Amino acid sequence: MTRRVAVVGGGSSGLACIKCCLDEGLEPVCFESSDDIGGLWRFKENPEPDRASIYHSVIINTSKEMMCFSDFPIPAHFPNFMHNSLIMDYFRMYADHFQLTKHIRFNTKVSQVKQRSDFSHSGQWDVETENKDGKKEKHIFDAVMICIGHHCHPNLPLHDFPGIDTFKGTYFHSRDYKTPEEWRNKKVVVIGIGNSGGDLAVELSRVTKQVYLSTRRGSWIRNRVSDNGLPGDLLYNRVMLCFRKALPFGLFCSITERQLNQRFDHTLYNLKPKHRLFSQHPTVNDELPNRILSGTIQVKPNIRRFQGSSVEFDDGSVVEDVDLVVFATGYRFSFPFLASHVVSVSENKASLYKYVFPPELDRPTLAIIGLVQPLGAIMPISEMQARWATRVFKGCIKLPSVAAMLKDIQCKQEAMTKRYVSSNRHTIQVDYVTYMDEIAELVGVRPRIRRLLLTDPRLGLNVMFGPCTPYQYRLRGPGKWAGARQAILTQWERVAQPMQTRPCNDPKPKRSFKWPLVLSAAAVGLAYFNVTHGKSSLLAHFTLWIGQ
Amino acid sequence: MTRRVAVVGGGSSGLACIKCCLDEGLEPVCFESSDDIGGLWRFKENPEPDRASIYHSVIINTSKEMMCFSDFPIPAHFPNFMHNSLIMDYFRMYADHFQLTKHIRFNTKVSQVKQRSDFSHSGQWDVETENKDGKKEKHIFDAVMICIGHHCHPNLPLHDFPGIDTFKGTYFHSRDYKTPEEWRNKKVVVIGIGNSGGDLAVELSRVTKQVYLSTRRGSWIRNRVSDNGLPGDLLYNRVMLCFRKALPFGLFCSITERQLNQRFDHTLYNLKPKHRLFSQHPTVNDELPNRILSGTIQVKPNIRRFQGSSVEFDDGSVVEDVDLVVFATGYRFSFPFLASHVVSVSENKASLYKYVFPPELDRPTLAIIGLVQPLGAIMPISEMQARWATRVFKGCIKLPSVAAMLKDIQCKQEAMTKRYVSSNRHTIQVDYVTYMDEIAELVGVRPRIRRLLLTDPRLGLNVMFGPCTPYQYRLRGPGKWAGARQAILTQWERVAQPMQTRPCNDPKPKRSFKWPLVLSAAAVGLAYFNVTHGKSSLLAHFTLWIGQ
Repeated sequence: MTRRVAVVGGGSSGLACIKCCLDEGLEPVCFESSDDIGGLWRFKENPEPDRASIYHSVIINTSKEMMCFSDFPIPAHFPNFMHNSLIMDYFRMYADHFQLTKHIRFNTKVSQVKQRSDFSHSGQWDVETENKDGKKEKHIFDAVMICIGHHCHPNLPLHDFPGIDTFKGTYFHSRDYKTPEEWRNKKVVVIGIGNSGGDLAVELSRVTKQVYLSTRRGSWIRNRVSDNGLPGDLLYNRVMLCFRKALPFGLFCSITERQLNQRFDHTLYNLKPKHRLFSQHPTVNDELPNRILSGTIQVKPNIRRFQGSSVEFDDGSVVEDVDLVVFATGYRFSFPFLASHVVSVSENKASLYKYVFPPELDRPTLAIIGLVQPLGAIMPISEMQARWATRVFKGCIKLPSVAAMLKDIQCKQEAMTKRYVSSNRHTIQVDYVTYMDEIAELVGVRPRIRRLLLTDPRLGLNVMFGPCTPYQYRLRGPGKWAGARQAILTQWERVAQPMQTRPCNDPKPKRSFKWPLVLSAAAVGLAYFNVTHGKSSLLAHFTLWIGQ
Repeated sequence: MTRRVAVVGGGSSGLACIKCCLDEGLEPVCFESSDDIGGLWRFKENPEPDRASIYHSVIINTSKEMMCFSDFPIPAHFPNFMHNSLIMDYFRMYADHFQLTKHIRFNTKVSQVKQRSDFSHSGQWDVETENKDGKKEKHIFDAVMICIGHHCHPNLPLHDFPGIDTFKGTYFHSRDYKTPEEWRNKKVVVIGIGNSGGDLAVELSRVTKQVYLSTRRGSWIRNRVSDNGLPGDLLYNRVMLCFRKALPFGLFCSITERQLNQRFDHTLYNLKPKHRLFSQHPTVNDELPNRILSGTIQVKPNIRRFQGSSVEFDDGSVVEDVDLVVFATGYRFSFPFLASHVVSVSENKASLYKYVFPPELDRPTLAIIGLVQPLGAIMPISEMQARWATRVFKGCIKLPSVAAMLKDIQCKQEAMTKRYVSSNRHTIQVDYVTYMDEIAELVGVRPRIRRLLLTDPRLGLNVMFGPCTPYQYRLRGPGKWAGARQAILTQWERVAQPMQTRPCNDPKPKRSFKWPLVLSAAAVGLAYFNVTHGKSSLLAHFTLWIGQ
């Protein structure tokens, strides 16, 4: 029977794994190569090898109600979008509350994870570790959870930039950026308009002489501060998910692109990409339009070549005297401590059943946790994966046949190829709610909305029309949490509270279900119309979704 | 006859005055106490006495098409909202193009401006100057234009803050702020939510441990980047002006406040003031909501008292270990070189006919230029005032009787008191278009819209439904500029051009008159309805306005 579980990495996914192991009565031992928890989110002045590194001012792009672990809401007074230091505070609270730290061995790097010779019946692993003094140790584990994220190795595609070797200025990967002061009154080129590229361009543009933001494809830009000032990710709910699944992809994109263009016209700003909004991992940036309109950031096409200190772009324009080039070109992941036949990675793709289990192992005792790029927060997803994996380890949940798993993997890859722009960025994309529901169904914790609407209408309406907060997955089944209902009913209070720092006697706007109900009626009407006209499967979707 | 004109100050208003004097065949001599043009807009590391001082990253809040001098459009490739260094570039181009600099005596401070003994028939002034070596000179001028702005003296109301003498941290007025680096990881309180307070809070919040933004009244917050990403000040046109004048004040405020609340709910953010949107000089800040939602700025009420390094607010909350307090509490103006009976200033109020002429002088040979706080840009307003003043000096335009002028001043003061929150900030408020039209009418350069619609419909529609760009006041009358028509017809191209830095093959959105025409028809319909129901004077307004 599975008992001892190795958890590789003490970041947010690692913490969730330890917690889930304990919940399931397993014995986790977490190996963390550094001296502290937090992984990606721990700011350090100097980047460490094989690890992402953040800059001083990083603020997360998912709001606190969407990014928390499902049975541990973020304190009400914490802001909606948290600075990295507050994220660390939250992780420490989580670790303290569930007494996770005592299961972590710090300064201990995992150098090898290998199937034991009797793996096919024991499912056990040999794990080799090395501490910072160079002392090596060997351990035997019944199962292994790998939580090293997908920001291990900076992607620095210098070979795509002819003449970079002649460049006289400084260049580095975005992971090496910490603060902007050094670049006051300098000319900076930032390559890449992902979240790092956008953030760095904005921050640098406040001090530099000029920032040039080079992007091959352009991008749709979304906001943290969405309609009425609410966090954007709280406005997406299950009714919209239903719309999204039922409407033609292009139509749903058009509706949402139109909304984004109302904020700023992506064509006027020359940022409009050829691809559709949902064909790309979203770039969230509230300040970019203002910096472009004030000219402190100039959007440029791809770089054709470097020559000395000048940069030539694909449109033939040349910028002279460039002092700094930042490659905000993302990361690549790999598992150097695993044999390639266990999990093979090529072109940032790994073949994993629902992004967790290598499908062809004799025993399902290895899980990769947090190797997804969600449209949403990763923490609750890692936690859900960990809940699933630990129950698989224990044998409470069986995985399907190898063939079925391989087919599922193939389907997912085909869907990804069809929907997304071909890029190393788009190999592990998941939609938050869809993926959470999918795994939750396997674990037996997916909320039953129809039943809720009948037995607890207030809660049911909140689950249906409110944001899909992680608490929804603690209402029933294994790991049910008594506080989940209350957490859902008070989620909007926790959104408002951090801003109650100045008395303002006006009545606060109440969230009502009037509009959601109208919308919902419209959805049913549209579904009926579509069915009677044989056009689409909206009613099927709606019925399927409500009929649980 | 008036010939020699002293211009006091070589900032944007001073430059416009020199230009207008030359246009009218007068001989300007401009005295500038520093060694360069630009006034407020010239960044200097160290603030100079009796002069506003800006911080490194200041970007103007009015867009280039609305802030330019009326016969000298800002280059097409300049960004819409210009950094202070670009504003200086533009001023230098203006000065070079019209050869203004040779009329400026730099490093020369005006120490006294006094009516000559024969003033009642000569209208002449004794002007005493002192250069930087202490050398004094006396001059005689036929007229004087005072262009020292209203940001001369920082307003530092320490007596309103008990215990400030015990404060252990640093405090200074916003004019002494230059860059944020020094305050990294510190706790900062910013007092005042005007444009400086908002900007400083946002900039500091990127580096500090925490920024507290203290505001007594709260504020409505507007955006540079408005609907579809267009500069907000370009969306206001003459049809809307007509609506604004005809609709009840409260109703028009409600409509616009609703739009601002769609960006972010001012009640949720605890920024909502008791006063209405148009009862306050607008605070423009695109980044504040994002900083509040991420908690890096906390909005606080007024400060009750200081004690050591702690700050207590009116709600009883206390913040300990404050390192810096910035008083973004605005400026006061005065005219120390003028006898108080010429222009008396008390509580930031000066009694001036249309904010330009002291009404009780025997001869109208003294003009104060740029002493307005517009909802819009000050440069074209100063220029319009200068066009008027120079023609008054020459005798081409007569001022009304003293009694009529005093009555006009009183009416304006009463209207201001009725509309605005009582504050030193709200003593010289003017609405851009209303005020421009008022002075333009006196000069004889107000556009005749009905005639334009009949004789040059394309231009007429642009003047009617397009932004009220300053070129509109160069279409006819004294100072008519042959390039004005073309400047108006190409203004949207100059808005788009600075962003054409990356090829994007999508067709650019065309500005059409479809919606403006619908809106206009609605206005006429509403007017008709109101008139037939005797409710309001919209039709009267509309007829008055179109019927020129």
